[in-house]
Amino acid sequence: MTNANAGDALDGLAELVRDDLAACNRAIVARMDSPVALIPQLAAHIVAAGGKRLRPLLTLASARMCGYPGGADGMRHVNLAACVEFIHTATLLHDDVVDESLLRRGLASANAVFGNQASVLVGDFLFARAFQLMVEDGSLRVLAILSRAAATIAEGEVLQLITQNDLTTSEARYLEVVQGKTAALFSAACQVGAVVADRPAADEAALAEYGTNLGIAFQLVDDALDYAADQATLGKTVGDDFREGKITFPVLAAYQAGDAAERSFWTRTIERSEQADDDLDQALALMQSRGAIQATLDRAGSFARAAQTALAGFPDSVHARRLCAVADYTLSRAR
Amino acid sequence: MTNANAGDALDGLAELVRDDLAACNRAIVARMDSPVALIPQLAAHIVAAGGKRLRPLLTLASARMCGYPGGADGMRHVNLAACVEFIHTATLLHDDVVDESLLRRGLASANAVFGNQASVLVGDFLFARAFQLMVEDGSLRVLAILSRAAATIAEGEVLQLITQNDLTTSEARYLEVVQGKTAALFSAACQVGAVVADRPAADEAALAEYGTNLGIAFQLVDDALDYAADQATLGKTVGDDFREGKITFPVLAAYQAGDAAERSFWTRTIERSEQADDDLDQALALMQSRGAIQATLDRAGSFARAAQTALAGFPDSVHARRLCAVADYTLSRAR
Repeated sequence: MTNANAGDALDGLAELVRDDLAACNRAIVARMDSPVALIPQLAAHIVAAGGKRLRPLLTLASARMCGYPGGADGMRHVNLAACVEFIHTATLLHDDVVDESLLRRGLASANAVFGNQASVLVGDFLFARAFQLMVEDGSLRVLAILSRAAATIAEGEVLQLITQNDLTTSEARYLEVVQGKTAALFSAACQVGAVVADRPAADEAALAEYGTNLGIAFQLVDDALDYAADQATLGKTVGDDFREGKITFPVLAAYQAGDAAERSFWTRTIERSEQADDDLDQALALMQSRGAIQATLDRAGSFARAAQTALAGFPDSVHARRLCAVADYTLSRAR
Repeated sequence: MTNANAGDALDGLAELVRDDLAACNRAIVARMDSPVALIPQLAAHIVAAGGKRLRPLLTLASARMCGYPGGADGMRHVNLAACVEFIHTATLLHDDVVDESLLRRGLASANAVFGNQASVLVGDFLFARAFQLMVEDGSLRVLAILSRAAATIAEGEVLQLITQNDLTTSEARYLEVVQGKTAALFSAACQVGAVVADRPAADEAALAEYGTNLGIAFQLVDDALDYAADQATLGKTVGDDFREGKITFPVLAAYQAGDAAERSFWTRTIERSEQADDDLDQALALMQSRGAIQATLDRAGSFARAAQTALAGFPDSVHARRLCAVADYTLSRAR
């Protein structure tokens, strides 16, 4: 199952749908425009700052795997991939305000440059614009899938806010947060690919299942990286989750495996947010000694395999193989 | 044109569509529910805190005026009125975060009670939920109208942010802000009434025109009240706009009519945000002496009359008369 060149999997996917991706990027730039110049300026700061376009790639590749013709015969997948990226960008803008983050993808975050107020409002604009694009597409099925995903994302984010600083959060509860804040959009992005190709409900469900599992794997690796990567690799501030007292899988694993002294360390730093300069180093050391990072990556591996299994019903194709490889990619980020 | 009991006009409208309004309030409570308990709690704080439901009332009355049967023959107007209120509530939640307001409708604002983070995210949830309700309604025309309104609202809010503290803002630019941040939703709320009743495009356009003018009149009176009302009447902190350096019609009128000393007062307090304790009193005095409040209310009166004119093509009916009276109501708030 493991791919020796898993790190190239995302590039491989992008290469496979290169023309679609270029068209999607053009659609993104064209449709984030507004007579209010600050909107495209701020949106460009984050949209054009070179995210990996993972979610729109999922829409493009899913549609192609399902036989959507594309090109002169249809650009629905391209426009809906742009919608997916707009929704993602809107949530990033609002997340950074909520988290008071100063870095995003290795650059100053939009709220740090343009202020919280503009970030909230431009997020709202992109969200509304995403729905305008869906209306132009004209499929109520697509609108249902993506409006439901948007509501689920917000629920997941609120749930995350509630569990913040709470070490009694169960693993199930934590996975509920992840399913909402991350996996819902992965899932919808994939499912939409089946819809534009007019495939039966079973194919839609399989792609939604693939996306859900892929999204959870992706988030678990992200959580691990926040305690295991250096800042240059991560493109965001290392230890952000720790400093915010965010409850993530590695913290829960280290806390649950810890002895009394360790638990009191986690209680002080995460629950009471009392942190000294060397506490992050101490946290990293405890995670290593308790195998918390490895436990997180192991769980990510299970979800990645479940994602691949969900695609088993599709006939073999280069798109199906590339989508399987993307599940390995999520894991490779931690290597 | 002036109605001796204009203050009762809104009550009259609410009474006229009493059953629809009760059903709408039930729909609002039912559909803001979520397994994440903080969401309905926070939403209830603002949705159930007893706004006047002006925007959903416009949808209900417009639909009825257009002959929509309602009752056992259709609840589309009720569900879409709930959508309109959700979009309005989402923008209020985000506005209060953006403005850092502590009061809303005379009560502590949601961000003051629950924090900015939850306010941003629950706003996102309500916005997504509004689109879910529209998808259930199933009309792409309605979705187009309300998604466009949502994008226009965000554009208006961003434009307001840009003009903040800028006394060179033209009246036209200011009206552009108002058209976006306030009038777009009034307009869409009314237009949707014509859509559910399956009326021709001319009726849709007339109701949209009515809503736009009504919304501008409403906002101009709101701007005047921020300098002319006592806090108990206003239900928000008096002088908020002044303290935030918000550019509104009364400020522009007083600045443009002022002599050199007055202009330097406005430049210091609004552009440079250097305010002393008695500056609000001074601002109020200058507005009185320059007739800035009256000028604002006169402009509001023009827009209110334009709203009434837009309804002239509809046959006389109790609903049409009540909608005309609502235009007088917007003005009566300032008396």
